[in-house]
Order: sequence, then structure tokens, then C-alpha cells
Amino acid sequence: MCLFCEIIEGNIPSKKVYEDDKVLAILDISQITRGHTLVMPKQHFRNIYDVDSETLAHLMEVVRKLAIQITEKTGALGCNIVNNNNEAAGQSVMHLHFHIIPRYQDDGFQIPAPAHDYDLDEILHQLTD
Amino acid sequence: MCLFCEIIEGNIPSKKVYEDDKVLAILDISQITRGHTLVMPKQHFRNIYDVDSETLAHLMEVVRKLAIQITEKTGALGCNIVNNNNEAAGQSVMHLHFHIIPRYQDDGFQIPAPAHDYDLDEILHQLTD
Repeated sequence: MCLFCEIIEGNIPSKKVYEDDKVLAILDISQITRGHTLVMPKQHFRNIYDVDSETLAHLMEVVRKLAIQITEKTGALGCNIVNNNNEAAGQSVMHLHFHIIPRYQDDGFQIPAPAHDYDLDEILHQLTD
Repeated sequence: MCLFCEIIEGNIPSKKVYEDDKVLAILDISQITRGHTLVMPKQHFRNIYDVDSETLAHLMEVVRKLAIQITEKTGALGCNIVNNNNEAAGQSVMHLHFHIIPRYQDDGFQIPAPAHDYDLDEILHQLTD
């Protein structure tokens, strides 16, 4: 059983921020910023590539509500919502989850944005062909 | 009118990856990795804090399908899905959008994950009080 399935089953303790029939939200044990929360479906999906649309819709509704709640309760100035799919993207637990990362003044966290000078028309042709 | 509303209206050109009645997906003019795409609702919402649940559900269904399509078409090994809310989180255009960032071997992109030794019980109390 995967780590998050073990947590969902209650075999491994966690810090629960929210729970309903289909979704669990817990504090990330490794806090990127204060209040960093993980939101996951109780049913096991590897990631965005295999989740069904109904599960994703409910998951995102919880993400939306928790983003508001966490931002208000922490006094954060905003938040990042991040979902990593497959090892190449930094996914470390192979159970679909979204990170809610509250943001504060000078919190030291930044998602880098290197800009590459690719040929957009060539990429567009590849994506939509 | 905001930059993305101008693009949606067709007043500013863009590279369209996908379009339906409610959602537009375009290549990010600043490509973090090859195939980097932005998915946005046509209706103007500032970000996750003010979007309605129905719009978000449809938006995420498009994100899910495009994540699969873009990964397949580019031959990527995975992808990050990122949504920045408010300036403190790096939101540069104040119109809700999700980034799909395809990932490749040694692509040089990494979301940093600094770990802070916060008191989880104290945070949990604050978030759920």
C-alpha cells in the first residue's frame, strides 16, 4: 500500500486539515511555507493522468475552499497550488495530490521561470496535430 | 480590460492550443519548458479565491485532458500543474490561469522545496480553529 493510502487508512498518523468521504487534506510533514497542505483523493490514483473527471472536480472544489480558509487563517498574502506528475516532475509519493502553499512577504520561496526562446508555431503544430 | 481578456476577445494574438465556449488554452509566450501552456476561463476571475466551483470543475477537466495530450504529443516524462494566486505568489496576470509545464530529462527546471521545522500542531490549531 502506498504511503498516502496508509495515511488515509489511519495506519500512519497525520495532521488532518480537512476530511470528507472522498478527500483528505493534511499538513505536509515538510513545510515549504507555514501552513503548507496536501489535498488528495481517498481513492488511489497515481496522478493527473489517471484520475477521473468527477474525482478531480470534487478534489479541486476542496482545494478552492481550503485555499481560501488557509489564506485567511494564516494571514497569508496569496498561495501557490502545485501538482507534480511523475518522477520527472518531482512527484515523490505516487498518489495524486495537490499542494497548497500559502505565501508571505519575503518568505524565500520562489518558483523559477526560465524563459526559453522556442519556436511557438513549431510547438503549436506538434501539440495540436 | 486585462491582458488575458484582450487575448480571449481576439484583440491580442495568441497561440491557441485548445478552445471551447468557456475555456481557452494558449502557449505561454515565455516557455519554462517546451510546450508550456496556460489554461484559463473565458470569464474573468482574478484567481482561485473568486472563481465559482462549476467554472473551476470544467477548467480542471480541460487541464486534465490537455496534460495528457501535451505529455503525449511532446514526448514529455511528466508535468507540473501550477496556479499562482496574488502577487505574493508570483501571479503576474490577474486573470485565473493554470500552467501546464511538461517535464523532460535534465530540463533544468525545479520547484524548490525548502523544509521548515515548524510546530505542526500549532499550525493545525490555527488552520482548523
